Amino acid sequence: MARIVQKFGGTSVADIERIKNAALRAQAEYEAGNEVVVVVSAMAGVTNQLVEYVDQMGSLFDAREYDVVVSSGEQSNAGLMALALQDLGIQARSWLGWQIAIHTDEIHGKARITGIDTAELEKRLADGEIAVVPGFQGISPANRVTTLGRGGSDLTAVALAGALKADRCDIYTDVDGIYTTDPRIVSKAKKLDRITYEEMLEMASLGSKVLQTRSVELAMNHQVRVQVRSSFEATPGTIVVSEDEIVEQQVVSGISQSKDEAKITLLKVADRPGVAAAIFGPLAEAAINVDMIVQNISEDGKTTDLTFTVGTADLDSAVAVLEKNQTDIGIGEILADSDVVKISVVGVGMRSHAGVAQKMFLTLAEAGINIKVISTSEIKVSVLVGEEYGETAIRALHTAYGLDSD
Amino acid sequence: MARIVQKFGGTSVADIERIKNAALRAQAEYEAGNEVVVVVSAMAGVTNQLVEYVDQMGSLFDAREYDVVVSSGEQSNAGLMALALQDLGIQARSWLGWQIAIHTDEIHGKARITGIDTAELEKRLADGEIAVVPGFQGISPANRVTTLGRGGSDLTAVALAGALKADRCDIYTDVDGIYTTDPRIVSKAKKLDRITYEEMLEMASLGSKVLQTRSVELAMNHQVRVQVRSSFEATPGTIVVSEDEIVEQQVVSGISQSKDEAKITLLKVADRPGVAAAIFGPLAEAAINVDMIVQNISEDGKTTDLTFTVGTADLDSAVAVLEKNQTDIGIGEILADSDVVKISVVGVGMRSHAGVAQKMFLTLAEAGINIKVISTSEIKVSVLVGEEYGETAIRALHTAYGLDSD
Repeated sequence: MARIVQKFGGTSVADIERIKNAALRAQAEYEAGNEVVVVVSAMAGVTNQLVEYVDQMGSLFDAREYDVVVSSGEQSNAGLMALALQDLGIQARSWLGWQIAIHTDEIHGKARITGIDTAELEKRLADGEIAVVPGFQGISPANRVTTLGRGGSDLTAVALAGALKADRCDIYTDVDGIYTTDPRIVSKAKKLDRITYEEMLEMASLGSKVLQTRSVELAMNHQVRVQVRSSFEATPGTIVVSEDEIVEQQVVSGISQSKDEAKITLLKVADRPGVAAAIFGPLAEAAINVDMIVQNISEDGKTTDLTFTVGTADLDSAVAVLEKNQTDIGIGEILADSDVVKISVVGVGMRSHAGVAQKMFLTLAEAGINIKVISTSEIKVSVLVGEEYGETAIRALHTAYGLDSD
Repeated sequence: MARIVQKFGGTSVADIERIKNAALRAQAEYEAGNEVVVVVSAMAGVTNQLVEYVDQMGSLFDAREYDVVVSSGEQSNAGLMALALQDLGIQARSWLGWQIAIHTDEIHGKARITGIDTAELEKRLADGEIAVVPGFQGISPANRVTTLGRGGSDLTAVALAGALKADRCDIYTDVDGIYTTDPRIVSKAKKLDRITYEEMLEMASLGSKVLQTRSVELAMNHQVRVQVRSSFEATPGTIVVSEDEIVEQQVVSGISQSKDEAKITLLKVADRPGVAAAIFGPLAEAAINVDMIVQNISEDGKTTDLTFTVGTADLDSAVAVLEKNQTDIGIGEILADSDVVKISVVGVGMRSHAGVAQKMFLTLAEAGINIKVISTSEIKVSVLVGEEYGETAIRALHTAYGLDSD
């Protein structure tokens, strides 16, 4: 007997038939003798509609009321899922965030879970009842409804799995697992049986949208075994686990791309202590997230060139902030380029294998692709290339690292 | 300064523009120096959609989960209304049923309110905050979400007005008040400035759907002054008050009709003690509501004829129940007729005025309309006539009782 948390995303519970189909997944685990907790998202599209209502309501924005509005889609789906399970002859009930309770802080709209009361849930699970929990919602210390931010249902599932010490947290979605790279770009992409938290974290933050970054962090912190799998096919998915559970580790596990990148280059920046703080301080104040940063060695000892990337949506405001401070900081020239894509190779095996970065540079050079910026971490190497070379680069790297399927 | 509860029905909060328009009504009362509580329904159509989802979910039916699903429409509208008020510069917050709390019994799907905690609300009202409350929902002793039955938002509003000792409970809807009869039938129908609880109760139970019967009862019990008024026009509506507040009482206040009536006549029923119980017992067990009952005097002392009405939707099952017991009870023949309409004249003035029923019978006779069944109460006279004569009957009676506008 195992304890399993199942989470069904918006496309997996998009209508009555799909909710019934998801209920069959829960039934299968339940009838195999397992304890089952089901976490549901709102029907696909519902949350967007509710967010749009809030946006139309005016310029003032009270995140507490936003949460009251947008949490309602998961609520109704939780009731429907409980009914679907009952219709299969299974004892089931819905548990709203405030009923469990899932305690959060007071940061409405993107609250963090601070604790989950599990005693009653555990009692019911032991009695053979399936608990159905609306994702995305919790309760603040002031007794108000909170939500966990977009994709927050993953967080609910992982946090519940952690609190309940579940054996597995299955994330049912519209893809059947994590691939070595995007199968729409590389037809020979392979589904991974296993991937480490660290790799998953890099993949998520690099633009692979299967699992939300915070959920992966939470799973890693609580050592929750997460499985990403398909709602529509009965095949095993990809299990996200800690490194020591993976026996034969590939050096590189996957290749991801992020098109949501724009490059800013600052030429002839005064090379003095504190200049980086003077540049990035105002950007941080404007809530602009800076990703890759590369500073070239100063040639004349007086000025330096600095390149960094921001999200595409932030490019215009970043340039505006820099122009405003250009004279004070001492920036010669500001160049902006949004036609770039970030390609990353990821793998925990890199730690013990030299030459991974070198192979990347060689492969891209052979393909005639110019690298604009390089940035590395312990388990990934990222490069920025022209947008038109993105797919060519991914295909070449996928072959070079031996990831192509037979 | 007064304390006012405003309730906006589904058509009054059917979209973002209408919610904003309703917020202006609240603003007007608020800026006149009043304390304001706003009760909102779900957007028109939303609750029906949610009920349909539940129906599609299967044959089993857990009313506790039904309540979780269908209460979500009011929840999101409460958040949106709070945002609309904030956008007008007014301090406002939503209060869900469990937050207030609005305590109910455990009869899910049609729960009764057992108590409302008002201390915190009163404090906030005194601080100049508008409380926005989703109608229709409460919380059971077991901490589950309950709903009050269709039209339950009226109940929420009246119960809150009673608990808060509000000076008035304004029900904003898509009609501008209570009329002497349906203006679509009688163009000379007049809007009533005032009507008594008792009359309103008769009107509601006779098919006038402006206010739900239970809400009128609750208002009467707690002496809540209810005003029915339009969300779309700034005219005063009709105030429902106790009899002693009405100075010049008309003998007849209004004429209503109910088409949802079917007549069953039982011929040659054995005339013995207990026969009525034998007939109506099985109908009650089948949850069939019987309305008018008329028993003719037995001619031969051995058999009698009995006529009664049921809702149109119940006619077939009522006949089936009777046929099953026909021999045991001793019923000669069963006749069914659904082409009938119930016309009622209502007025508390009847108590002190003779001849009201006689005028009704005379008027209908002059119009050549045959009366099939008569039933009277202290403040109403109802007759059953052929469906084709319904509108003619209403027009003739409206004129006869002096209700036509000039």
